[in-house]
Amino acid sequence: MIKARVTVTLKNGVLDPQGKAIEGALGALGFDGVSGVRQGKVFDLELEGTDKAKAEAEVKAMCEQLLANTVIENYSVTIS
Amino acid sequence: MIKARVTVTLKNGVLDPQGKAIEGALGALGFDGVSGVRQGKVFDLELEGTDKAKAEAEVKAMCEQLLANTVIENYSVTIS
Repeated sequence: MIKARVTVTLKNGVLDPQGKAIEGALGALGFDGVSGVRQGKVFDLELEGTDKAKAEAEVKAMCEQLLANTVIENYSVTIS
Repeated sequence: MIKARVTVTLKNGVLDPQGKAIEGALGALGFDGVSGVRQGKVFDLELEGTDKAKAEAEVKAMCEQLLANTVIENYSVTIS
C-alpha cells in the first residue's frame, strides 16, 4: 500500500478572500506581523500496489481530473 | 520574513464524509484501488522577523486559537 499526499494551493494572483478573513481574524486575536495568508487543501490517499512511479502518475491524473481546478490552483504530490 | 505552512488534518477515528465522497468520485472516474481518502486544510503564512523558533511558537499558538479545532484535528507546522 502506498500513501500519497496531495497539496492544492491557489495560484499566485488569484484572490483568496478566505485567507484575507483568516489574516484579519489573526490580527484581531493579537497576532501582529502576519501577512500573505493563503488557504489551500490537502488530500491523503492510500493506493493499492507497490509501484511508486505508477502511483504518482495516477495521483497526478486524479489531480487533473478531480482534486484540483488547474485554472486557478496548483497541486503537488508527495508519495511515501 | 519567515514563511510558514500549517497542515491541519482530521484525527484518526473522526468521520470524514467529504473524504468518502471524494473516494466515491475517484472510483466513478475509473481510479480503482483508492482508499482511506481524508481531506484536510493547509495555510500558508508570512511572518515578520527572522527568529524561526519564535515564529514557530507563534504559529503554534495561532493553530491552538484559530486555525485548528484541536478536539478533532491535528496540526503540523513547517517553517522555511
